[in-house]
Amino acid sequence: MPNMPASVDLNADLGESFGLYRYGADDELLPLVSSANIACGFHAGDPSVIRRSVALAQQYGVAVGAHVGFPDLLGFGRRRLLATPAQVQDYTTYQIGALQGFLHAAGLSLHHVKPHGALYMMSLEDDALARAIGEATVAAGEGLQFYTIQGTAMSATATKLGLQVVAELFADRGYHADGSVKMFDWSLEEAGGTAEAIGQRVVTAVRQGTVPTIGGGEARVAAQTVCVHSDTPGAPAIARAIRQALAAAEVAICPRPATRPR
Amino acid sequence: MPNMPASVDLNADLGESFGLYRYGADDELLPLVSSANIACGFHAGDPSVIRRSVALAQQYGVAVGAHVGFPDLLGFGRRRLLATPAQVQDYTTYQIGALQGFLHAAGLSLHHVKPHGALYMMSLEDDALARAIGEATVAAGEGLQFYTIQGTAMSATATKLGLQVVAELFADRGYHADGSVKMFDWSLEEAGGTAEAIGQRVVTAVRQGTVPTIGGGEARVAAQTVCVHSDTPGAPAIARAIRQALAAAEVAICPRPATRPR
Amino acid sequence: MPNMPASVDLNADLGESFGLYRYGADDELLPLVSSANIACGFHAGDPSVIRRSVALAQQYGVAVGAHVGFPDLLGFGRRRLLATPAQVQDYTTYQIGALQGFLHAAGLSLHHVKPHGALYMMSLEDDALARAIGEATVAAGEGLQFYTIQGTAMSATATKLGLQVVAELFADRGYHADGSVKMFDWSLEEAGGTAEAIGQRVVTAVRQGTVPTIGGGEARVAAQTVCVHSDTPGAPAIARAIRQALAAAEVAICPRPATRPR
Amino acid sequence: MPNMPASVDLNADLGESFGLYRYGADDELLPLVSSANIACGFHAGDPSVIRRSVALAQQYGVAVGAHVGFPDLLGFGRRRLLATPAQVQDYTTYQIGALQGFLHAAGLSLHHVKPHGALYMMSLEDDALARAIGEATVAAGEGLQFYTIQGTAMSATATKLGLQVVAELFADRGYHADGSVKMFDWSLEEAGGTAEAIGQRVVTAVRQGTVPTIGGGEARVAAQTVCVHSDTPGAPAIARAIRQALAAAEVAICPRPATRPR
Repeated sequence: MPNMPASVDLNADLGESFGLYRYGADDELLPLVSSANIACGFHAGDPSVIRRSVALAQQYGVAVGAHVGFPDLLGFGRRRLLATPAQVQDYTTYQIGALQGFLHAAGLSLHHVKPHGALYMMSLEDDALARAIGEATVAAGEGLQFYTIQGTAMSATATKLGLQVVAELFADRGYHADGSVKMFDWSLEEAGGTAEAIGQRVVTAVRQGTVPTIGGGEARVAAQTVCVHSDTPGAPAIARAIRQALAAAEVAICPRPATRPR
Repeated sequence: MPNMPASVDLNADLGESFGLYRYGADDELLPLVSSANIACGFHAGDPSVIRRSVALAQQYGVAVGAHVGFPDLLGFGRRRLLATPAQVQDYTTYQIGALQGFLHAAGLSLHHVKPHGALYMMSLEDDALARAIGEATVAAGEGLQFYTIQGTAMSATATKLGLQVVAELFADRGYHADGSVKMFDWSLEEAGGTAEAIGQRVVTAVRQGTVPTIGGGEARVAAQTVCVHSDTPGAPAIARAIRQALAAAEVAICPRPATRPR
Repeated sequence: MPNMPASVDLNADLGESFGLYRYGADDELLPLVSSANIACGFHAGDPSVIRRSVALAQQYGVAVGAHVGFPDLLGFGRRRLLATPAQVQDYTTYQIGALQGFLHAAGLSLHHVKPHGALYMMSLEDDALARAIGEATVAAGEGLQFYTIQGTAMSATATKLGLQVVAELFADRGYHADGSVKMFDWSLEEAGGTAEAIGQRVVTAVRQGTVPTIGGGEARVAAQTVCVHSDTPGAPAIARAIRQALAAAEVAICPRPATRPR
Repeated sequence: MPNMPASVDLNADLGESFGLYRYGADDELLPLVSSANIACGFHAGDPSVIRRSVALAQQYGVAVGAHVGFPDLLGFGRRRLLATPAQVQDYTTYQIGALQGFLHAAGLSLHHVKPHGALYMMSLEDDALARAIGEATVAAGEGLQFYTIQGTAMSATATKLGLQVVAELFADRGYHADGSVKMFDWSLEEAGGTAEAIGQRVVTAVRQGTVPTIGGGEARVAAQTVCVHSDTPGAPAIARAIRQALAAAEVAICPRPATRPR
């Protein structure tokens, strides 16, 4: 068989609350995932939310990554901001460092980095931006994994910089015929509709490297880590269905093994 | 003689610019001091300012500390904010971590922590706040120094937590009869007036442990590190006068030696 | 009978969402109240939330007031910030003006001003702060009402400045023996427990000017406007119970009549 | 002669300080201009800066406009932010309203609106954005003038919405052959070099409707209001030279006359 991984990572974007504002199904999702991307206080999250998110991740043995975004709380980091690559590199260093402060205090280490929202999308196509994020990640520590979509500027740049790229599949979003993800104006229907259908779709993507596309047909995808957004309606049920489908297919759920020691 | 130190540290609060806004005489002061307290993006500073400040400190061989403050850019961290001790601990962890991100990327290590503005003042009297800041510092790394005023809640708490407390003298501020510093509505007259007088006053404080007080008379002070604020008018001239006066008195200027290895 | 008002105002703090963050039961409460205090973007709210809140208030014919607070989104304006009176006056002018922008665009006028959170509490005791808020309100337009607690510095100052003070009762908070409100670490039990008990308590306060106190006994209160917080658990049910109890007691619910033409 | 205006407006972007940060030559420029575009707290400015700016404008009899920008203090509003037109409309309403609060308190009225930085540039080409800004301006009051560049989407849209468009010339920036302004990586050389040359260039633009272009040659421009940026090095000297050159050419400096009563 072309793709028969012993395991896949299941990740969620977490820690997106701010002050009194609660956001996302963190408490329900954390027991279900193998890695968590924690917001670092720019597009979402605040120091107290980060501390709590790190403590929960520690409690459930979940690997922690930095979910770095634009300094745009009002837009939740989902709006493109034409910052310079140098600014983006500094924003990335700052956010990773802040999260590492809480990890260090808890006796943990950073596992990976994953851009958020508009920064994620822009890094897929913009070489200079991809390099800025990648270099900040390289400078932040040895052996960090980098979550992004395969076949993109970000993926190529991170690989070139010596980062261990982990190919990401979005379980709760539809795919276009060219393999790109429909991130805006999406509906769960485009990702399969029911939690069970989404679970089956993930198994197919992980084992066969394909995903059905919005217009019919299918696209090739790489799925070493599978993302469920904590703010997708029914996210915990979707995560549970993915876990069941992967278990039935005898695919273990755990963070991607390191290609070199950390 | 009661106090005859071989050396004293000379520190400045730096990196307080933000975006397009420039603040303080950083470029002139950095060659003159032995340690720098760099703002971490809460009361002042931003990621790009931090990166530049760290690079300058590295260029001049200046030890770098985290200047942690309240999240109040509008008030420059100088207004008391009744945050809880738990919040302050989280703010401290976040700011130290963010700065450490830039230090790590530059191949440097954090040397010390010093609270800023209203947080500094409140920590002198509030045990719970002092403990919050102290514990965040302890959790941030081995062997960190902590700059504060001797004989205060902050000093006692930091000592109890095992931090190496470095007693701070404010070269450019007047002192009250009880040894406390006049931080608001101050004038340089109260600190000696001319740069030369300030330099002599620092030598006396360092060698004899006394400082003239505003109403006449003198107070006992401990001066292991001497602060010149980067936004005090004529700060570089004051720093140069202090250097000359200390040199004439054969007191070396360098960061306080560590009491235990880092 | 000593107090037999023909009517009372029922107000709620609304428009406290921010960006993607939703907060409070605005949609359920707006049809139930006669006036709304809308957050102005400092402690909560943002331009788009304000526009929507004004539109909803217009739809239900609810009088709109400015709910002005400290520039502390992270603390939701509930933490004391030692800003100067001059700063607070400027913050108040700014927030009222911003809200008036949306009111003007909708063809509405501002009805009242009510401070929020820590600013509300501090204004009850601090003459200079009370004057700052009061003067900004006077400068914002003719005939504005001012909601605050009777017998406080804020109430006295607002009256002196010529504002029409409307005495506020907090339906969902307990009262101390001295007539002050228990704003922190509160429980609904202290306010009566059930929605029905709260409704009865409001009727007693409105008609007889007394409220049961936490330790037993009762305190004198003035209740020309009755507040239900939109983030109190069960706020809509409480508002409905208050409406029923007032209806049964033949007290109409409407904004306080103006003492002079606007 | 094709263009022989009796008068021209001279405007400056002012009030761009924030908290302790000072920015721009406001105090020197205000006596020299006929209208001021005051930052409203999003890209620059804060409530106390606005109050002071309005007071200074009042002292010198300068017409006050709202300089509305993106909520990006870190980038000074100079970075493109892909906010939706609805968001931009709300941001514009909010900022205009906030400034009007201070104007009303001072007994003044708003004279005009001018977008700032990236928002200005984007509005020149984006019909939906131009409509959003224009509609917010229309809703803010009767008879408001709108400063923008002639022949752009913003100019056409504002005219269509019934606003009095005032064509803006940038005295301190070079022009491309197509009549567009070089806003980034500019040098004063491109605008004429010396203050005197800039003054002559302004007279030519005002009287003959042409401006020399960067590559040689000239472009047609409309110049009913002439902008000098307060942060251009030597801005006050440039403004004085423009005043002298206009005086010598017998062109009066005053706000553009209203085409209909306010």
